[in-house]
Amino acid sequence: MALGASASGWAFAVDVSNRSRHEFEVKNEVEGTVRFEPVRALLATLNQRDIAMAGLGASTLAWHRQHQFCGLCGSRMVAVEAGGRRACTSETCRNRAYPRVDPVVIALVQDPVRDKILLGRQSVYRPMMYSCLAGYVGPCESLEEAVRREVKEESGIDVGEMSYHSSQPWPIGRGASCQMMVGFTATATSTEIHIDTNELEDCRWFSRAEVAEAEELVVARRPGPSEESSKTLSIPGPYAIAHHLIKNWLSTTKAPLQASGRNKL
Amino acid sequence: MALGASASGWAFAVDVSNRSRHEFEVKNEVEGTVRFEPVRALLATLNQRDIAMAGLGASTLAWHRQHQFCGLCGSRMVAVEAGGRRACTSETCRNRAYPRVDPVVIALVQDPVRDKILLGRQSVYRPMMYSCLAGYVGPCESLEEAVRREVKEESGIDVGEMSYHSSQPWPIGRGASCQMMVGFTATATSTEIHIDTNELEDCRWFSRAEVAEAEELVVARRPGPSEESSKTLSIPGPYAIAHHLIKNWLSTTKAPLQASGRNKL
Repeated sequence: MALGASASGWAFAVDVSNRSRHEFEVKNEVEGTVRFEPVRALLATLNQRDIAMAGLGASTLAWHRQHQFCGLCGSRMVAVEAGGRRACTSETCRNRAYPRVDPVVIALVQDPVRDKILLGRQSVYRPMMYSCLAGYVGPCESLEEAVRREVKEESGIDVGEMSYHSSQPWPIGRGASCQMMVGFTATATSTEIHIDTNELEDCRWFSRAEVAEAEELVVARRPGPSEESSKTLSIPGPYAIAHHLIKNWLSTTKAPLQASGRNKL
Repeated sequence: MALGASASGWAFAVDVSNRSRHEFEVKNEVEGTVRFEPVRALLATLNQRDIAMAGLGASTLAWHRQHQFCGLCGSRMVAVEAGGRRACTSETCRNRAYPRVDPVVIALVQDPVRDKILLGRQSVYRPMMYSCLAGYVGPCESLEEAVRREVKEESGIDVGEMSYHSSQPWPIGRGASCQMMVGFTATATSTEIHIDTNELEDCRWFSRAEVAEAEELVVARRPGPSEESSKTLSIPGPYAIAHHLIKNWLSTTKAPLQASGRNKL
């Protein structure tokens, strides 16, 4: 499947999932040894452009695999337009399928009074790793409605005002689907947490000091806590929009007036 | 299909597309005469809640129709979870399909130097109706990259800085698909228009005076120009995010200092 053209030439994605790994792991005089890695494992090592290319390749191939048959009539579909679309082979149907991008909201929920932020962890995360709350945008809801609903569902916390921060494609979603992550900073209007244990393993308020320490661990590229026994918070690396939402909070939000002693009139 | 519960009870969407119109257009003592209208025709008359409900119903039914067969194995799929998911009936496949929401960017492109905005028209619009440029977010691109690419592709205009304005679900997209419209205000860094005639019929810069007059026509609820011969700009009504992007520009952007004579130091 063609992914696109750049100054250095065309890029293609090739599905090798039904061929032997051995076939490709051979010495190549130009490129060195060819290795296969899951896209998620590449996030921390590749540059932005190569992450985008690898992600586009993986999600494009996954999308093609998931549309072998026409949803309308059940006939075979084939790739058309260099892999940018799929078309039904039935002459009477002629249905076309378009690449799918799933919008997802991710929110940094802050409590400006207590100067804390709300972070949650899923059971699949590494020990003590916490991140911003996120979830799929449902049909016929706005991004803002999705933030409000997801935070309430997962943590029981109500949010009031919110502001858009940035967006980031995330090509390693559910079934290698391509997600469109939209990041918001939201202000909590309640404090008592009620966790939805189907979604989260834990959810807590973290202080500025705890979050700053976790951010320093990431910046120093020191390995984060890896033992279950560790009590130190760990946050996602710079490849994730959650990292930038957290960093933005650390850099711009001020501690309460009483605590900091700053900003006195 | 269940759409959700509210204080007034549960709401359901029922597919009546293969039943006769006559069967439903009967006198009903409570509700009056039952009529059928396309969702698009309802946008200007229903309140926000009812638009959302009608749109959710229409797009949910369209999504079910488009997933009669499993994309992975070609077997029949059936609705599960009260219509919130579809599941493959093959015991060996068990694939599940999730409702689809397509992210779309829409941008008000402004030229602050000449105090104009860029609006385009598709051939399906009513005469002299122009709107903000919009397009689907591609796999593995951010919202901001999508704005830059779409505006460049459709109009040839380059954009620099941009800021998020708001989001709006739009349940009457391609094939009754549910779109997530994300609105931005973007600043142009070039002025010369090169139209992609596959996408747009026309694209022009409009002055503050022209846009203000079009907005007044909408507010006064007077019918807009309907004759091909009309030369007066027409813009979308308040049901569309484009309207709010345009209105926001009218209310907040200042005319250049020289022209307005205001804001002198």
